[in-house]
Amino acid sequence: MTSALQVLIVGGTHGNEFSGIQLLQRWQQQPLRFDNLMVQTLFANPKANQANRRFLDDDLNREFTPERLCDFNLVNYEALRAKSINQQFGPKGASQTDLVIDLHNTTANMGPTLILLQDCPWERQLAAYVKAQMPEAVILMELEKSYQQWGYLCTIGKRGVMVEVGPQPQSVLRHDILDQMDQMTQLILEFASLHCRQELPQLSHEVEVFTSVENITLPLNDEGKPLAMVHRRVEGSDFTELAPGEPIFQYFDGSVGYFEGERTLYPTFVNEAAYYNTFAAFSLADKLKLEVPAV
Amino acid sequence: MTSALQVLIVGGTHGNEFSGIQLLQRWQQQPLRFDNLMVQTLFANPKANQANRRFLDDDLNREFTPERLCDFNLVNYEALRAKSINQQFGPKGASQTDLVIDLHNTTANMGPTLILLQDCPWERQLAAYVKAQMPEAVILMELEKSYQQWGYLCTIGKRGVMVEVGPQPQSVLRHDILDQMDQMTQLILEFASLHCRQELPQLSHEVEVFTSVENITLPLNDEGKPLAMVHRRVEGSDFTELAPGEPIFQYFDGSVGYFEGERTLYPTFVNEAAYYNTFAAFSLADKLKLEVPAV
Repeated sequence: MTSALQVLIVGGTHGNEFSGIQLLQRWQQQPLRFDNLMVQTLFANPKANQANRRFLDDDLNREFTPERLCDFNLVNYEALRAKSINQQFGPKGASQTDLVIDLHNTTANMGPTLILLQDCPWERQLAAYVKAQMPEAVILMELEKSYQQWGYLCTIGKRGVMVEVGPQPQSVLRHDILDQMDQMTQLILEFASLHCRQELPQLSHEVEVFTSVENITLPLNDEGKPLAMVHRRVEGSDFTELAPGEPIFQYFDGSVGYFEGERTLYPTFVNEAAYYNTFAAFSLADKLKLEVPAV
Repeated sequence: MTSALQVLIVGGTHGNEFSGIQLLQRWQQQPLRFDNLMVQTLFANPKANQANRRFLDDDLNREFTPERLCDFNLVNYEALRAKSINQQFGPKGASQTDLVIDLHNTTANMGPTLILLQDCPWERQLAAYVKAQMPEAVILMELEKSYQQWGYLCTIGKRGVMVEVGPQPQSVLRHDILDQMDQMTQLILEFASLHCRQELPQLSHEVEVFTSVENITLPLNDEGKPLAMVHRRVEGSDFTELAPGEPIFQYFDGSVGYFEGERTLYPTFVNEAAYYNTFAAFSLADKLKLEVPAV
């Protein structure tokens, strides 16, 4: 008999992203049951939620780098909470948890996005499975760092993924967004259960994924203040083509800034409210077809 | 010669509504000039903006009731700021300022909305003028209280109006929303200038306005926690018809709540993030055609 996979579903890593928190409540009342999965849930930052903020002192979803987890001089609230979560469900790199699914909202028009941090057969098959069941789903791979080097909470698991659904303003619960997050999360669990039991159905031969390329910051003046906002051409255009020469910035002096890339890329996280303090405008991703290993 | 009207344009009454704050910066560099208007600007709550919050202690845009302005036991930050603003640009009821225009954002899909707090010939003519120049504009009259009884900042002026533009998440600056706020504000100034000089053009005989009727709160359990969220039928449907019997609440137990009104009304402020702590779901307005007094 195959032993059960330990799965952790996390909501409220950011206190003002309400969908995951609401789903945890639902699943505590109506537990998720999938063959061969032991599913636990974690409300990661209830104190930030009480304060209706993303975090109290520091972004919890950046605390889980190996360096920060080992640095006992970091004593802000989220640094301590990270160490506690890592102790309870990790430890990172030698985890008792097979899979962590962390639930997030974005103010950007990204639809239901599955964020993967590794490009291995398991991830490609998961991507193909989710896309087949939920065609509106978007797969975004963040591969700029190794899985272990990311500071994301989900990396305390042997495998970790994020479900990122928007557009939803902070501190709002949208019905449509909640349903999308529910559906995507259950598909991931279904996949993990089928994969564990070696009962996956036939999958497509290839799957479309976006891979993150770079972050685009607003142009700043000498004092570090923004000189421009995101141009309306790019607003709400997550995962659609952006060609070299197209407008990306509307300067406050009336002039326009253009995309100086050498090839067509795809904006993501356009105008994400949580990044206002970093002056992030959007990120750019490439679109690829990846081969899906046969089941 | 007609004496100049004293006009005050206010931004940042709520610290995380960025459009008005940005427009103030633009207009400080490129001052607004309209015949017969003396235009000043006010950044109402820069400390809340620094904290990237709507307010520090209390909602500044509810502080301007006659009672609160006179209550010197109210010593929270916004209560003090309100008294200072009232002293500088009011005082309410005997104001040195002829017109206050207060600029706001909403996370609701309300488009460019002009909120009026009185239904007098001046307001009806303003509504007709703005609608003629900007057909996508929506006029919302809040008449449940007398002008003086509202706690809104703009009521410190002899006349006060609010420009409310969305959808825009808190802490985000959208190009399209900024342009709509800019256009509507300049149309109000243009109207005030033309009205003052008795040079208004011919206006339409009637104008469509929405008048607010009631606030709809989420259903709560005995502990005061929400039992439901706004149903997807109503999400994003500001200023569109809602008929009796249509779904308005999706309960977390899976059941649906229906609109029990006796006639078709129009939701406004659907899922406004700033009202999360009051459990407001949306407001309802009626739609009317009002006669516009001849120029």
